[in-house]
Amino acid sequence: MRTINVGLIGLGTVGSGVVEIFRKHTDDFRLRAGVDIALTRFADRDEGRAAQLGLPEGSFTTDAAEVIADPSIDIVIELIGGIGVAREFVLGALAQGKSVVTANKALMATHGQEVMDAAAAAGVDIAFEASVGGGIPIISPLKHCLVSNEVESVMGIVNGTTNYMLTRMAEDGLDYDSALAEAQAKGFAEADPTADVDGFDAAAKIAILASIAFNSRVVLDQVPTEGIRSLTAADVSYAAEMGYTIKLLAIAQRTDGGVDIRVHPTMIPEAHPLASVNGVYNAIYVVGDSVGETMFFGEGAGSLPAASAVVGDVIEVARHISRGCLGLVGCTCNEELPIRDLAELQTAYYIRVLVTDAPGVLAAVAKLFGDHGVSLASVIQKTDEGPTAEIVYVTHRASERAVRAALAEVEQLDVVDSIGTVVRVEDL
Amino acid sequence: MRTINVGLIGLGTVGSGVVEIFRKHTDDFRLRAGVDIALTRFADRDEGRAAQLGLPEGSFTTDAAEVIADPSIDIVIELIGGIGVAREFVLGALAQGKSVVTANKALMATHGQEVMDAAAAAGVDIAFEASVGGGIPIISPLKHCLVSNEVESVMGIVNGTTNYMLTRMAEDGLDYDSALAEAQAKGFAEADPTADVDGFDAAAKIAILASIAFNSRVVLDQVPTEGIRSLTAADVSYAAEMGYTIKLLAIAQRTDGGVDIRVHPTMIPEAHPLASVNGVYNAIYVVGDSVGETMFFGEGAGSLPAASAVVGDVIEVARHISRGCLGLVGCTCNEELPIRDLAELQTAYYIRVLVTDAPGVLAAVAKLFGDHGVSLASVIQKTDEGPTAEIVYVTHRASERAVRAALAEVEQLDVVDSIGTVVRVEDL
Repeated sequence: MRTINVGLIGLGTVGSGVVEIFRKHTDDFRLRAGVDIALTRFADRDEGRAAQLGLPEGSFTTDAAEVIADPSIDIVIELIGGIGVAREFVLGALAQGKSVVTANKALMATHGQEVMDAAAAAGVDIAFEASVGGGIPIISPLKHCLVSNEVESVMGIVNGTTNYMLTRMAEDGLDYDSALAEAQAKGFAEADPTADVDGFDAAAKIAILASIAFNSRVVLDQVPTEGIRSLTAADVSYAAEMGYTIKLLAIAQRTDGGVDIRVHPTMIPEAHPLASVNGVYNAIYVVGDSVGETMFFGEGAGSLPAASAVVGDVIEVARHISRGCLGLVGCTCNEELPIRDLAELQTAYYIRVLVTDAPGVLAAVAKLFGDHGVSLASVIQKTDEGPTAEIVYVTHRASERAVRAALAEVEQLDVVDSIGTVVRVEDL
Repeated sequence: MRTINVGLIGLGTVGSGVVEIFRKHTDDFRLRAGVDIALTRFADRDEGRAAQLGLPEGSFTTDAAEVIADPSIDIVIELIGGIGVAREFVLGALAQGKSVVTANKALMATHGQEVMDAAAAAGVDIAFEASVGGGIPIISPLKHCLVSNEVESVMGIVNGTTNYMLTRMAEDGLDYDSALAEAQAKGFAEADPTADVDGFDAAAKIAILASIAFNSRVVLDQVPTEGIRSLTAADVSYAAEMGYTIKLLAIAQRTDGGVDIRVHPTMIPEAHPLASVNGVYNAIYVVGDSVGETMFFGEGAGSLPAASAVVGDVIEVARHISRGCLGLVGCTCNEELPIRDLAELQTAYYIRVLVTDAPGVLAAVAKLFGDHGVSLASVIQKTDEGPTAEIVYVTHRASERAVRAALAEVEQLDVVDSIGTVVRVEDL
């Protein structure tokens, strides 16, 4: 059996991890995969990376197309990210009959169908375990181990940056800005934290998970997304008083009305397995009709954890190449479930309202909620010093549409200064 | 493509679940596996099962050998358990060129090498995801997703019966007997609970996990095993006071001295992910050199959860048969690591001692520990009413050998009534 040759495009954080794992464990791969696997070609825009990583002379290029066109290469690893040139490289490699391993969540969440179709047409593998949850095995378990289930829901903490920030806010009462500054100082958040704190990173991941779990294509821009910017230390603390933890959850549920999919801060009971997933850790919670509740926990980011998943995929693809069974598990999106409108959501809501006249506001707000059929489970006045008081409402289960309509009117009341925060409460 | 035909031997709890899942989802299997899969033959010693499950006429037999010999059968599911006839059936099916799916932990933990070798010789698949952790994906993630790692440790709560009992002891202060009676009343414990409460079930599972994680064969009788019979409500409560939770952990760690493998009640910090795994839930915690910490959580027993894993294996094997790539991932036990003697263990110990003369015993016991090089982290007198007092010692990290030697002498002291409980404390 000849050696399976692998080309690596993108020598950033995860790419360096892949180089490191190959250096340490190449001999083990032969034993596990039954075939020799060699990382032989490397591409990055930054010429300095070759020297930094001590790559063999002649193995590096700044032109990724060279790696893709190299006839000796069997598997291309794409670790550039984004949906621009990365898409071209992935489609180019597949078109040349090479299998592709990628960690690119944006690509798979946006052009997943195109990429899967291209792999199927070429009769090769496309693998993307690292695109969700870093090193946590979740895509393969869904496609293999849990395949006998109708998955009822898949939800998770899939962004380590925001989970770190929320953990710090909960543990030490930090406000949002301090938590962000700390995360940036520790290298857990980027200088521009938008993709993380506004929930887009999580939205891409849940689109990928939902597509697999429900066998129905969901793309990134179908995911209603709210980030954590509006959360205050008070919200986190009030949640704790009520026995809840606030997590940025990516949620996808199979419902009679279609796929309910969304990303937003969510209050979950402290006893739920997801509630104790803290710091930069991620976890994906899956409920299947046979298996019941399962959860997959681990490091959702970082060089070596993500590289662990990438190299795991490479070894699996190498097994398939060596045994002539590429394309063993392709796209299974053969259902076409509708995406349910977020307005159809039925859940409970935590609503913090800032008012200028607490005694006067209570009856008025209660009436507006009542007019829209929203029943209140609790009303607690939190502060009454200064010109504004803070009132926290928790509703019974109500429709998103009704709550939004009620809040639009509440906001117009003279005695209401502003709606502070609205957090959905899920009694999972 | 012809239909893949499956024969099922053993129509008990898990077998009934397999029948139910096939009834509900056979059409989905075609879409997921790309091939038709049919459950066509059934065997059980109890003739009544055919009628109870409403099996088609002529599909049932009390003679499992008929199913194995049936030339139309491609895959045999073995759900009898044990290492007697089950072993014969599994080896018989493999010898006839049929792939086998089994949930049989005793067989795989005792005769795993023989079974794997027989499958390899026949060029067929042997799959056993359901043998550990019920429906939780763990064997496949270890063999595939995490294959690029050197696994440093794998440990878990892999017995739901004892975890239920320990949870009830912790939550409501139940004593051992009441917790067992409650577990039996709820159907979580058998009339003869030996295999669960004495740790043998967990020992078989950790032998299987260690063999895969470390690529080195470990068999059941190499696993030092202690159950939970000696634990009292007081132990559980004292642990909580110290910030610990007592779990029956199955532990396997790669050490310089070989594989450290054992099953025993263990105090773990409350903040550890395993500490909040309660009730009948199981979880397996894996640390790899690249992936870091991961954990796999779910229902470790029960008809449908275990059947979820069995049918997942069946679908995977059907994919392999239809694509001509059986034997894709066989036995990877190509290392021969020694098993480290339990006496070499270095950990901390919780020791509850019953004494007749508390003031007099303190200096004497401290001296004996000191003589053996065991240093004490804390000594707390818990009760002093009645003829005996209770003293709880917690040691610093010490060797099992030294602690055992010290305790043998402590037990001989006139003022010592008995050694109550010894629980290893792991600051994971």
